[in-house]
Amino acid sequence: MAGKVAARKAALREKLVDLAEAQIAAEGLASLRARDLAKQAGCAVGAIYTHFDDLNALVLEVNGRTFRRLGATMARAVDGAEGQSPNARLTTMAQAYLHFAADQPTLWRALFDVEMSADGPVPHWYLDALGNLFSYIAEPLAELFPDLPARELDLMTRALFSSVHGIVLLGLERRISGVPVDQIEQMIAQVLSQIGNRSVS
Amino acid sequence: MAGKVAARKAALREKLVDLAEAQIAAEGLASLRARDLAKQAGCAVGAIYTHFDDLNALVLEVNGRTFRRLGATMARAVDGAEGQSPNARLTTMAQAYLHFAADQPTLWRALFDVEMSADGPVPHWYLDALGNLFSYIAEPLAELFPDLPARELDLMTRALFSSVHGIVLLGLERRISGVPVDQIEQMIAQVLSQIGNRSVS
Repeated sequence: MAGKVAARKAALREKLVDLAEAQIAAEGLASLRARDLAKQAGCAVGAIYTHFDDLNALVLEVNGRTFRRLGATMARAVDGAEGQSPNARLTTMAQAYLHFAADQPTLWRALFDVEMSADGPVPHWYLDALGNLFSYIAEPLAELFPDLPARELDLMTRALFSSVHGIVLLGLERRISGVPVDQIEQMIAQVLSQIGNRSVS
Repeated sequence: MAGKVAARKAALREKLVDLAEAQIAAEGLASLRARDLAKQAGCAVGAIYTHFDDLNALVLEVNGRTFRRLGATMARAVDGAEGQSPNARLTTMAQAYLHFAADQPTLWRALFDVEMSADGPVPHWYLDALGNLFSYIAEPLAELFPDLPARELDLMTRALFSSVHGIVLLGLERRISGVPVDQIEQMIAQVLSQIGNRSVS
């Protein structure tokens, strides 16, 4: 009996994450409403809050899925590319990041927009997913800068991730700073081809 | 008589931009409400729309001011630094950008957030203000890459601006990817010190 209740609860939790993911994918993070989700899931609004502290916690679950897919996409992009130069591998991963973002802009944006309005601690598994992404970048960077202390390599990894993120973010922006995707690809290659050779100041 | 009416209209327009700027500075773009502005300005809500097509047009005016201040800040940062290396000047400007953003995060964010929800053409003077910002970056870049065709130099300028923007954006983000300002400074220097020497791929 208890097993059945637990299974039903887990199924509802999963369903709510599925529905939230579909809603964010279709209309973006700002369109997410607890009332609409409850209606679609066939539960009371209050039932959402027995599973999640608040809507942000639900969004973090969706983002966790997105992060894992993004990590898998980047890993796939450099699978078998071990023979290429570190710059080439960095660029290949960054292009994979760009296309991931361009193909599912609302889910991608939710990764970065959720935190702005929320307070409270970030779950550990969330930071782990982000750390996992960073580890793909750190590997070719360590080849480019074999003598860089770990702390600086870590900062450089964040710096390059953030750089590519900025190029993708402003480049995909439709109205003011937007450019065609092939030009975004070119901008990424321009910057990443420069990394290496010089000592880091 | 007509002169007095025109002057009163111009004064109300100016006052509305002042009030919107103060509101965005204090509580961010999302807090802006036509009703509140009208109340503070002592006018009818409809009077706002005789001056501006919509609230976004008013935000663009505020952003125009912010862009001009930002441009002046970056120009001041490298005033008298003509003898420094192009990398040093790029880094100095980028640090000025970081501190501008850190000191007035809501006005800075409004520069990039306004367009996402809006349709319609971007005013020419707005694009000019952005182009003016880019021109400060293009100058040291042209020294680093004297043989780069103008079109690629233009892309590289956007790419570096976007890179620094990404580092500042994620670095100032409080919860998930945030780091102390001195580490943001270090990330900027790490990336910008790498630019040059290599041919652009």
